[in-house]
Amino acid sequence: MPKKIRLGVLGGGGDSLIGVLHRVASHINDNYEIVGGCFNPDFKANKAFAREIDVPLNRIYSDFDTLIEEELKLPENERIEVCSVLTPNFLHFPMAKKLLDNGFHVICEKPMTTTLEEAKILQKAHKKSGKVFALTHTYTGYPMVRQMREMIKKGAIGKIHKVDAQYYQGWINEIIHDKKLRSTVWRLDPKKAGISSCMGDIGVHAFNMVEYTTGLKVKSLLSDFNYLYKDNKMDVDGTVLIRMDDHVKGVIRSSQVATGDENGLSISIYGAKASFHWEQENPNFLYVKSDTQPMQVYKPGHAYNSKLSLDGTKLPAGHPEGIFDSMANIYLGAAKAIRGKRYNDGEFPTMEDGVRGMNFIEATVESNKKKNIWVKMMK
Amino acid sequence: MPKKIRLGVLGGGGDSLIGVLHRVASHINDNYEIVGGCFNPDFKANKAFAREIDVPLNRIYSDFDTLIEEELKLPENERIEVCSVLTPNFLHFPMAKKLLDNGFHVICEKPMTTTLEEAKILQKAHKKSGKVFALTHTYTGYPMVRQMREMIKKGAIGKIHKVDAQYYQGWINEIIHDKKLRSTVWRLDPKKAGISSCMGDIGVHAFNMVEYTTGLKVKSLLSDFNYLYKDNKMDVDGTVLIRMDDHVKGVIRSSQVATGDENGLSISIYGAKASFHWEQENPNFLYVKSDTQPMQVYKPGHAYNSKLSLDGTKLPAGHPEGIFDSMANIYLGAAKAIRGKRYNDGEFPTMEDGVRGMNFIEATVESNKKKNIWVKMMK
Amino acid sequence: MPKKIRLGVLGGGGDSLIGVLHRVASHINDNYEIVGGCFNPDFKANKAFAREIDVPLNRIYSDFDTLIEEELKLPENERIEVCSVLTPNFLHFPMAKKLLDNGFHVICEKPMTTTLEEAKILQKAHKKSGKVFALTHTYTGYPMVRQMREMIKKGAIGKIHKVDAQYYQGWINEIIHDKKLRSTVWRLDPKKAGISSCMGDIGVHAFNMVEYTTGLKVKSLLSDFNYLYKDNKMDVDGTVLIRMDDHVKGVIRSSQVATGDENGLSISIYGAKASFHWEQENPNFLYVKSDTQPMQVYKPGHAYNSKLSLDGTKLPAGHPEGIFDSMANIYLGAAKAIRGKRYNDGEFPTMEDGVRGMNFIEATVESNKKKNIWVKMMK
Amino acid sequence: MPKKIRLGVLGGGGDSLIGVLHRVASHINDNYEIVGGCFNPDFKANKAFAREIDVPLNRIYSDFDTLIEEELKLPENERIEVCSVLTPNFLHFPMAKKLLDNGFHVICEKPMTTTLEEAKILQKAHKKSGKVFALTHTYTGYPMVRQMREMIKKGAIGKIHKVDAQYYQGWINEIIHDKKLRSTVWRLDPKKAGISSCMGDIGVHAFNMVEYTTGLKVKSLLSDFNYLYKDNKMDVDGTVLIRMDDHVKGVIRSSQVATGDENGLSISIYGAKASFHWEQENPNFLYVKSDTQPMQVYKPGHAYNSKLSLDGTKLPAGHPEGIFDSMANIYLGAAKAIRGKRYNDGEFPTMEDGVRGMNFIEATVESNKKKNIWVKMMK
Repeated sequence: MPKKIRLGVLGGGGDSLIGVLHRVASHINDNYEIVGGCFNPDFKANKAFAREIDVPLNRIYSDFDTLIEEELKLPENERIEVCSVLTPNFLHFPMAKKLLDNGFHVICEKPMTTTLEEAKILQKAHKKSGKVFALTHTYTGYPMVRQMREMIKKGAIGKIHKVDAQYYQGWINEIIHDKKLRSTVWRLDPKKAGISSCMGDIGVHAFNMVEYTTGLKVKSLLSDFNYLYKDNKMDVDGTVLIRMDDHVKGVIRSSQVATGDENGLSISIYGAKASFHWEQENPNFLYVKSDTQPMQVYKPGHAYNSKLSLDGTKLPAGHPEGIFDSMANIYLGAAKAIRGKRYNDGEFPTMEDGVRGMNFIEATVESNKKKNIWVKMMK
Repeated sequence: MPKKIRLGVLGGGGDSLIGVLHRVASHINDNYEIVGGCFNPDFKANKAFAREIDVPLNRIYSDFDTLIEEELKLPENERIEVCSVLTPNFLHFPMAKKLLDNGFHVICEKPMTTTLEEAKILQKAHKKSGKVFALTHTYTGYPMVRQMREMIKKGAIGKIHKVDAQYYQGWINEIIHDKKLRSTVWRLDPKKAGISSCMGDIGVHAFNMVEYTTGLKVKSLLSDFNYLYKDNKMDVDGTVLIRMDDHVKGVIRSSQVATGDENGLSISIYGAKASFHWEQENPNFLYVKSDTQPMQVYKPGHAYNSKLSLDGTKLPAGHPEGIFDSMANIYLGAAKAIRGKRYNDGEFPTMEDGVRGMNFIEATVESNKKKNIWVKMMK
Repeated sequence: MPKKIRLGVLGGGGDSLIGVLHRVASHINDNYEIVGGCFNPDFKANKAFAREIDVPLNRIYSDFDTLIEEELKLPENERIEVCSVLTPNFLHFPMAKKLLDNGFHVICEKPMTTTLEEAKILQKAHKKSGKVFALTHTYTGYPMVRQMREMIKKGAIGKIHKVDAQYYQGWINEIIHDKKLRSTVWRLDPKKAGISSCMGDIGVHAFNMVEYTTGLKVKSLLSDFNYLYKDNKMDVDGTVLIRMDDHVKGVIRSSQVATGDENGLSISIYGAKASFHWEQENPNFLYVKSDTQPMQVYKPGHAYNSKLSLDGTKLPAGHPEGIFDSMANIYLGAAKAIRGKRYNDGEFPTMEDGVRGMNFIEATVESNKKKNIWVKMMK
Repeated sequence: MPKKIRLGVLGGGGDSLIGVLHRVASHINDNYEIVGGCFNPDFKANKAFAREIDVPLNRIYSDFDTLIEEELKLPENERIEVCSVLTPNFLHFPMAKKLLDNGFHVICEKPMTTTLEEAKILQKAHKKSGKVFALTHTYTGYPMVRQMREMIKKGAIGKIHKVDAQYYQGWINEIIHDKKLRSTVWRLDPKKAGISSCMGDIGVHAFNMVEYTTGLKVKSLLSDFNYLYKDNKMDVDGTVLIRMDDHVKGVIRSSQVATGDENGLSISIYGAKASFHWEQENPNFLYVKSDTQPMQVYKPGHAYNSKLSLDGTKLPAGHPEGIFDSMANIYLGAAKAIRGKRYNDGEFPTMEDGVRGMNFIEATVESNKKKNIWVKMMK
């Protein structure tokens, strides 16, 4: 392995949680070194933060455009190779596009863009650029999620006939039940936060999980949102009926008012021969069930797991790795791609995942608005 | 307490599981004695079974009509007081009706009838009779299910905003995936088994659980069924979006092809203050969650439980009671009613539960047939 | 099957929990009918209770000796065949002995006697009588406990090298921490309750579970008791190191001051090839682990279980049976024996279990008293 | 915060798991930068590894003594400040001592030394040096372990009366049951691996956990080891009875032949008011039980947790952090100490933990050798 990949970071300063997540993940497999960036729109805060995490100040820029301009002046073997885009949602698109257009690889937080239209534009820019684009659907980096995908590919559960995914959180309760709060907070303001709260923020993760693990595409969907209060304009809960390739039906349930649920992403996949159940809050346990045999509990780090799963585990079985490690696996996959090494489908979420995610969000909003009709998704 | 209640049993002979369930449940609280019945349409088998379980042969009848006729000849203080109707579904209605019309109390297996129309006729007959009618939605007898109901009544979880119930089984896999089997088995023949397989058999339990625990009624629903194969005419899987009183939304998920799931009835109820989660296969654990406090795990037999819950527990905490005990609690409630004692709402499912259950089944079939439109339920 | 077995009950009147447990268990498989007994030393209460549970008053006796005397006058085909002994511990021995001496079968609660000496005398009386003696170590009736025994017999886990059993309860906290209570309550008075509280009441169950499942005998033990307070003379907590046949070592941990533990009996058995873990409060889940394969979770009612296990399940998988059903399995085994039918080793605990249990209790007391030396058990 | 702390690493090269664990942990909170070290006794491999993880080659040394010598020549503000000692056990003592003697801080893997005598010498060297010494008992860095400690300190569970800790693994099965393997592998050779296998490697972690959480010291112990085979000279399983301050009794159970157990460290602590249960493989769930209230399940990241616990969590509740994060918390605590900042008792294990650990190992060996007598520990 040559030198570490030179990473620039956009956003994620101060005590931003997404910042910690990416920073730690980038370090975990010794592949990246943060050499510069723009952590904060306020230049002073930006530099203070760089000092705090000990990144050289000479490559901390006052804004994104300056970063591009200045980095391009550097010789290629010193220049930032890849940028992590951790800024507010509406900035993902312009930043990612400009980065690709200027020959940088991109690691981008989700949602990839704010509209499907933007997503399609970005997709074209990406194709043209020939650069690596990784979307950080963090949860697909878990070893046991990868294990589902690989076992399904090999036919371990037979033809799939039902998928049931859930993403339940309760944190918006403290906002939504307070009339004043819910009408002032930016997160529930469509102008600031986009067309959907619950589906856009977390439903789309569940959707991605469904397509990632099964290898099947959602063809059409019917959604029913819950706003709880008439004066609230953003969905805080919803159920989506889905129809997939191969006559598979399913349901995606998502909520931000599931009181007491913390980060309750889970998935059940039922095949003719066996089924899977996995829960994000106990990510190292994968339940494999059949009608006639005892349930099996798969855990990471065992020789019985697939290569893709084992690549995502660093310690022996019984040493719990967590969400930082899951994100680190995505960074690891992107590192292979950036270095031009062989990597497998499934090592990190791609541009296509981003486009489909935006398609999903817009389709659920449309179905709900049109009183719960079936809406087709792109192929 | 005077003498035991004289119980007659219709159906449930041989190694019928529903027969064992009712027989054991009837004994558990020392309230009933089986004094006669008609366990089997074959008179010889009927008597052989009576001998096996040691019920006097002189009150084992060749058929249901003879039972009515002969029992009515007996003095009232010897006559069967209540009959358990455990026969195939299509017989529930005619038997229950004739029993009520002739002054017998009835304990009836679900589904109460095969159509909503029958259900309404039975409801009238019941009102006229003045007799006790108990429907054995077994799962509402569990102490922790009762505990949810009582806590919700007292406002412990605040205004409800979301309900999510599931009933997943996998046993029909061995039939549905075999082309010959699925076209010959009576369970998947609408003429023999009624208009719905999955919703009619188990979805209706989940529906009943939702209304029982929340105390709210479903107002309208939208359903999507899965038949898996074009040559199969009965739903084996489906999802139902529901709208309830008080602007509550929810979802009922039901499947008979959920591979490896055994008897996976569960419910989550989210209120503004707290939420519940309960699973039938671990019935003695009730999870109570809030956004700010540690999750609590309620168990039966503790002083912190409600009276209705405690009435359903016979042993100290930590001694697992199961499904026989749950059914026994329903028999216990019915016994109080039969003896004219005070009992509380919630001690056993009633005629109204039966009518609503039939309404639910028919409404889900209608919604699915009409391409997933919203269908209103009766008030 | 002929008529039900005529059962007499000694003790267990009023709201005695052990009374409910035995009564329900005796009914569950349609094998027994309670025809008489002496539920209570107070004759009036005795009759009132009989009336309540509808047992014919003419065979309710004023005391145990009268019961024997009067029943012997009845013709053999009317006479009580078997008595359940549910009286206070010190009465187990004289009652069981007199019953056996007079030709009655006996179902006896544990501890079988109050001393090993008594146990040996009873053993002789039993041999002489030729009658059935069943000891109700309730927990060995669970289907998954039986499954462990059968799998071990067949070598499924290979040579055993370690056993770890636990029986933790917390209920004595409310007594022990109150100086006045702990010096007055009969349960902590050796004169009234025997030489041991914790080991005598629950440790002995764990010991029995160890020998029942492994098929191996404990050869010697070293125990350390905890009394918590100097003025308390009865163990309320203790750990016992054990050495078994075949060089197996292990540990039995038992406590009545394990705050918040309800009825925490559990066992782990480690073999060279695989291991078991089972917990009484989730009795329908048996965890089977190996070093190289995913953990398996066995559940009752599946075809993969042994015959002995399946005989103890009445309903399909997923319908939780509980402690009443476990006790009912012991009554079922005893019924087979009483009727002279074939039954297998392991269907109910025997006189030998009772003798060894008393040996265990006395040995732990001796080891602790002698400052934690190794004490040998009988072969 | 100034520049990152300059960290040197001794051992942990190649695919050493302990190497990954420390390297990742050191990065997680942006406190350390690896500036040099000696990863491998083979100089070529050493440099190759440094290249792989991108550490400057000019500070990769051929051996430990050279490292000391050369680093001392550097100006203080460039010199390595702290070394992580990840070498084989017998090297911990000489390296740690020389480091302290020469003014370096030390982060040391356990066991701290190979004998209690060495430990005491090291303790003196440490006192004299005035430098920071952190022992990486990884598991005490988990937020829920810290939560136990803090709640106990505040009296949340009342006076403790019983402690039960377990550390069960199964990995040595593949060695011990093979006669040739067990007599050749260095891990079971006392000359190479020290006087104890099971107690020395993992039992000592359980012991440390007991003292860390309760704040009480073990005063005396009685142990019984299991060697399984006569030709094996190292314990692979054992049980230790303990007596602590304040009349607390308890048991520590440890095994390397617990088939199918991966890294099964767990602890139960029983107080007069409440009790704790925690398991390493589900580290984000802390079970708090009482006799009269529903069990509570504490999770990291909630405001109800103590400061010490919250300091160890980086993401909101529901985002599982794992063992790398636990180790990172210890590195974080050490960083505070190295920088001369305020830190609290409990932020990292200390020299005293190391001394007591060696005392524990030697005492268990002595007790077992002397046929299970009570052995006193140092105060």
